[in-house]
Amino acid sequence: MTETRLDVLAIGNAIVDIIADCDDAFLAREGLTKGMMRLIDAEEATRLYDHMGPAREVSGGSAGNTAAGVAALGGRAGFVGQVAPDQLGEFYRHDLNATGVEFVTPAADLGEPTARSMVLVTPDAHRTMNTFLGAAQLLPSSALDEAQIEGAAILYLEGYLWDPETPRYAMLKAIDVARRAGRKVAFTLSDTFCIDRHRDGFNQLIDDGKIDILFANEAEVQALAGTAHFETALASTAARVPLLVVTRSEKGAIAVAGDERAEVAAEPVAKVVDTTGAGDLFAAGFLAGQAQGRDLEASLRIGAIAAAEVISHYGARPEADLKALVAERLG
Amino acid sequence: MTETRLDVLAIGNAIVDIIADCDDAFLAREGLTKGMMRLIDAEEATRLYDHMGPAREVSGGSAGNTAAGVAALGGRAGFVGQVAPDQLGEFYRHDLNATGVEFVTPAADLGEPTARSMVLVTPDAHRTMNTFLGAAQLLPSSALDEAQIEGAAILYLEGYLWDPETPRYAMLKAIDVARRAGRKVAFTLSDTFCIDRHRDGFNQLIDDGKIDILFANEAEVQALAGTAHFETALASTAARVPLLVVTRSEKGAIAVAGDERAEVAAEPVAKVVDTTGAGDLFAAGFLAGQAQGRDLEASLRIGAIAAAEVISHYGARPEADLKALVAERLG
Repeated sequence: MTETRLDVLAIGNAIVDIIADCDDAFLAREGLTKGMMRLIDAEEATRLYDHMGPAREVSGGSAGNTAAGVAALGGRAGFVGQVAPDQLGEFYRHDLNATGVEFVTPAADLGEPTARSMVLVTPDAHRTMNTFLGAAQLLPSSALDEAQIEGAAILYLEGYLWDPETPRYAMLKAIDVARRAGRKVAFTLSDTFCIDRHRDGFNQLIDDGKIDILFANEAEVQALAGTAHFETALASTAARVPLLVVTRSEKGAIAVAGDERAEVAAEPVAKVVDTTGAGDLFAAGFLAGQAQGRDLEASLRIGAIAAAEVISHYGARPEADLKALVAERLG
Repeated sequence: MTETRLDVLAIGNAIVDIIADCDDAFLAREGLTKGMMRLIDAEEATRLYDHMGPAREVSGGSAGNTAAGVAALGGRAGFVGQVAPDQLGEFYRHDLNATGVEFVTPAADLGEPTARSMVLVTPDAHRTMNTFLGAAQLLPSSALDEAQIEGAAILYLEGYLWDPETPRYAMLKAIDVARRAGRKVAFTLSDTFCIDRHRDGFNQLIDDGKIDILFANEAEVQALAGTAHFETALASTAARVPLLVVTRSEKGAIAVAGDERAEVAAEPVAKVVDTTGAGDLFAAGFLAGQAQGRDLEASLRIGAIAAAEVISHYGARPEADLKALVAERLG
């Protein structure tokens, strides 16, 4: 196998988050299910935005957050996703590049603006996402740089990318390129509703042996396994992939690789402000740990440290010096 | 005098803040003076942005922040300023309207984008601002709604508005409309460099008796008075305006109206994160207090409470429930 240029190349929807506070009554009035991500069209995006409180804009997107986290932890990260040639697209590119992420997918002038997700944060710090995919949903296979994929130790994909048809094919092509080059493929299940929408597709990816590392949270692994019993879901899913990593919010996280099982507690957080990006940054920490040759437990710890940082403030990108945090807590 | 529709109508540069952390070495390398605001052109904006770290975008602009603060405190606030028909302009309008601020100045398609200020925040929480005025610097007198000005108890203006020539004339016209309607005019000196640029203009406004309430911080009142002795600057400036309000960061604030003098301490803040907007929100709190018929000391307290909230997080717009904070601390 040739040398790698990147530790992680992430492919995902390039989305700027528009983050506003709201109360539970607002979610109820708008008919929104707390904690979920729903896809909306331009008209609904305008309608909901008109109802929302004042907001802050921060670059997001699940796989983009993970790429930013890997880079913030000192890893070599790349991102593939599509923005439009507009102000949001400029912010998105800047924020990734400024974090040290290689992001060279060109902006596409196809009449759709850069994607935005209206993230509603309730006082319990849970986030409910309303995503207008815009230019992101038009990411074509032709935007992939095969040499970039071949040069990345791990290709990381978000389940959300399965929603729009065009990027789904780009993702499947990228998986084939990565596997032919002998690279590993990591995949996150993203959201239980996303699993409901694409259960067959996800199961096929797994059963075809295309996923080396599967990321999920507790609800997602149970949804995929079709059982509300966590240990059963964990065991049956772990049997299907070489490495399974499951996050459990305040209950910590577990990694299972064949007969090996590691488990860590959640990192303490002074005040949880906004849980957006917790899973994304956990994945970043875990993958950065793996890239550094750490064992499962240490990789989980780095994931927990990165997740704890990102939920302590608004926005799904790290704000503190993650490398320093890890050095301080883990050595 | 007819009834008022608004407590405060603020006119200012409509600016979205692009906020990034940096260290002192970055400021030194870029040749920036900590704590100041400088105006930059599009080319320098692009150059600096390329050097900056990942950022968050939050609506700002000095007078816009004050209008948002007045509304967040339950006051009736309006804002006049010019954005472009672009994504930043949409955010700006949304954020003001969602806070309850009347903002009806149309977006102008004049080839200039919505203004942005690159706000660099050092670990000591000081902010250094690099502002590209774009569409804001083209606000014409014709964008003013005279009935709106006549219906506002207080017209509030930022000294920054003196920088670009076109809005300067709009501001002078607005002052005349307000004074003819028997309304009060409040003015903030904005920045010591701004005073250096426009000392004669500011002095003339004051000496022509056009300013009823003058806001300044310690450095600004000293710069205007031409003395490094605070009490001398305070006394000589207070003699020139009916009401002078001076903020002194952690030393609190002072209001002087003729023979009356009130003084308050700064409100405690658990952790100062970003001082952007401290003066703007202090002015908002003071003006909201005055609109509620409170005395000078209580108005200063509300200013201190609003300023303390805004410096506890990134961005110059209130995030907490200011009305509740004031009710809790002041009653």
